[in-house]
Amino acid sequence: MIRKTRLFTPGPTPLLPAAQFAMAAADIHHRTVEFRALYQRVLDQLKEFVGTRQDVLLMACSGTGAMEASVSNLTSPGDRVLVLSAGKFGERWRDIAKAFGCQVDVVNAPYGETFLLDDVRNALKPDTRAVLMQATETSTGVRHDVEGVAELLKESKSGALLVVDAITGLGTTHLDVDGWGVDVIIGGSQKAVMIPPGLAYLSLSDRAWAAVETSKSPRYYFDLRKERKNAQKGESSYTPAVALVAALGASLDFIASQGGGDLAAGRKALVENAETCAAMTRAAVEALGLKLFAPESPAAAATAVYAPEGLDSGVIVKDLKTRFAAIVTNGQGEMKGKIFRIAHIGLFDYMDTIALIGALEQVAASTLKIPGFEFGKALAAAQNVYAERTGAKKPVAEGALAAR
Amino acid sequence: MIRKTRLFTPGPTPLLPAAQFAMAAADIHHRTVEFRALYQRVLDQLKEFVGTRQDVLLMACSGTGAMEASVSNLTSPGDRVLVLSAGKFGERWRDIAKAFGCQVDVVNAPYGETFLLDDVRNALKPDTRAVLMQATETSTGVRHDVEGVAELLKESKSGALLVVDAITGLGTTHLDVDGWGVDVIIGGSQKAVMIPPGLAYLSLSDRAWAAVETSKSPRYYFDLRKERKNAQKGESSYTPAVALVAALGASLDFIASQGGGDLAAGRKALVENAETCAAMTRAAVEALGLKLFAPESPAAAATAVYAPEGLDSGVIVKDLKTRFAAIVTNGQGEMKGKIFRIAHIGLFDYMDTIALIGALEQVAASTLKIPGFEFGKALAAAQNVYAERTGAKKPVAEGALAAR
Repeated sequence: MIRKTRLFTPGPTPLLPAAQFAMAAADIHHRTVEFRALYQRVLDQLKEFVGTRQDVLLMACSGTGAMEASVSNLTSPGDRVLVLSAGKFGERWRDIAKAFGCQVDVVNAPYGETFLLDDVRNALKPDTRAVLMQATETSTGVRHDVEGVAELLKESKSGALLVVDAITGLGTTHLDVDGWGVDVIIGGSQKAVMIPPGLAYLSLSDRAWAAVETSKSPRYYFDLRKERKNAQKGESSYTPAVALVAALGASLDFIASQGGGDLAAGRKALVENAETCAAMTRAAVEALGLKLFAPESPAAAATAVYAPEGLDSGVIVKDLKTRFAAIVTNGQGEMKGKIFRIAHIGLFDYMDTIALIGALEQVAASTLKIPGFEFGKALAAAQNVYAERTGAKKPVAEGALAAR
Repeated sequence: MIRKTRLFTPGPTPLLPAAQFAMAAADIHHRTVEFRALYQRVLDQLKEFVGTRQDVLLMACSGTGAMEASVSNLTSPGDRVLVLSAGKFGERWRDIAKAFGCQVDVVNAPYGETFLLDDVRNALKPDTRAVLMQATETSTGVRHDVEGVAELLKESKSGALLVVDAITGLGTTHLDVDGWGVDVIIGGSQKAVMIPPGLAYLSLSDRAWAAVETSKSPRYYFDLRKERKNAQKGESSYTPAVALVAALGASLDFIASQGGGDLAAGRKALVENAETCAAMTRAAVEALGLKLFAPESPAAAATAVYAPEGLDSGVIVKDLKTRFAAIVTNGQGEMKGKIFRIAHIGLFDYMDTIALIGALEQVAASTLKIPGFEFGKALAAAQNVYAERTGAKKPVAEGALAAR
């Protein structure tokens, strides 16, 4: 049969067609009135999308570049930072901080879990300059408690800055950046904003900007002071990724349209969308008799699922790809071969979700050897979740018209 | 939730992305070496796709234009033609033939059915110049017996030419144009070849070309003699729809890729693909307790389904559109409000089909008031059909590993 390739990966995510067309049409020089107008508009839209009154800076780099920029702009060699780590991206915070000469304390949670706030409280030192964490840990499908950590920092009168990698969190989980007191928030283009990789964006609180002034770490491409100064004139410090900026404008327009013209409402709609796709998927997976990897604190960004005991999860990933061209991801690092991950970030809808669950049932039927397997059980579980969450009317069993 | 618009209509059908890109890139003049090379290549590919050794002519018009060209090039005013009609497109043959002054005999079959070969035999007259029929009647989802009619014409020593509108039949049902002795075969761009409307193509047998020479009907734009002469030089008589030709080239490349590089095998794969999508859909619809409109001779091009007694089928069409952005079509003509139609022509895959059935279950749950409705039943029926048709291994119920 025909197989259309469909990404169910936590980045890159499926592209918005309107963004693809904008990207294709972006035959424009970056030091022109036209591009400045586009750039300024996109930066303004990003503020609304992120939900902050601060400037949002946009850079030609992957999300990791913006993570590095946070460390190199906020810390000096020898500064103490606390990394909250529960997976591969937590470990990346640790590695970046070490690369810039920080003293790194780490609160570790096992893969598949989130850390305890008490452990965070105990690990804070008087000289902790920054706490580095993820909003959602994509490698394990876990949501962390950003609000809880922010409150803890306030309560404990710690002066530590809260730096949040929300690369897969923005648009999949509720974040009140200014309200909670998040000092740095980081996003990436190939996630909820539905465009290809190549752009990262971040915004800093007033406290974070003050810290930038005192930081002695080396930085040039990622010098945020220079970037902010240019951004306020509608410029980027270095050559911007023009086509991706045009794509981002188109996708932010689309996200606004999902909120009736309002980007904050659009972001909220995106989060609810991801939550519904994730809830359908979790119900389906459990109906199949499979075990969720992160049942306690699941991220709507991605659902991580254990392969059945004795089966390499790569077999499921490969089966979905070769039989249905549905691309899901294996576990990362130590979880490779043990779990597989289905993403819900960005441009997924009900029909995508049902289709993936259907394909997963087919793989289950032929490969997973699940006792008592029956076609339709996982799909029915997802259908019920969808009907409940969307308030669709329930099946009518009596007083009904006969079907012809 | 996000709703991606998806066409499940029998034309236009979903566009092939590679064809969209080719169309966007088609900034090329039509009287150049470059375009002639493209045009010649596409005409050659169309011969393989149609499966004929005759020239295939391509014209900037809808399928109806090629239907008119068949009548105006093969008949003279006063000629007797026999129209085999079982729906709106059969009626179109009648209307075109009348417009060109033919004496029109008609064999009618009720909507939802195909005609009896005996009725066709009885309706043939010694002076019947042409028999005009559809391969598949899209308005009712019925497949007609082209091979049977072709045999009948041979057996009965009728000199009538067999003219087949295969606009939705090519790529959804097996046709052996030269082998069966089809004299004219007609296709359209917005069908199995997965590009937008605007092109029609047709090929004529040697007998048909002989008839063209004696026809006295007026024709200019659709003069097939001129078109063939130009096509043999890699040209079109009038300005060709350049972007659509480029798109068609890309889509024929894709279809060939589905047949391991061979267009005849690719067309066969397309037919099997449509048949699997159609069989899944029929099983699902019946599991929902709905009645198929054309259970006896269903076309793989589209599945027509009765709305439950007392419910306007427009409600189902509207519900699928407003809730899921899934576009199916209402009945046409006298069947409007009574049936709805789900297409399987062209770029549909397993995942599209499962997704549409999922959406239909949701509509059934909230709107159709089907006694004993349960989520998952229709989906399971489709899943079983898919597993059987694709030879996927059956569920293993024993000796199985426990799911974690």
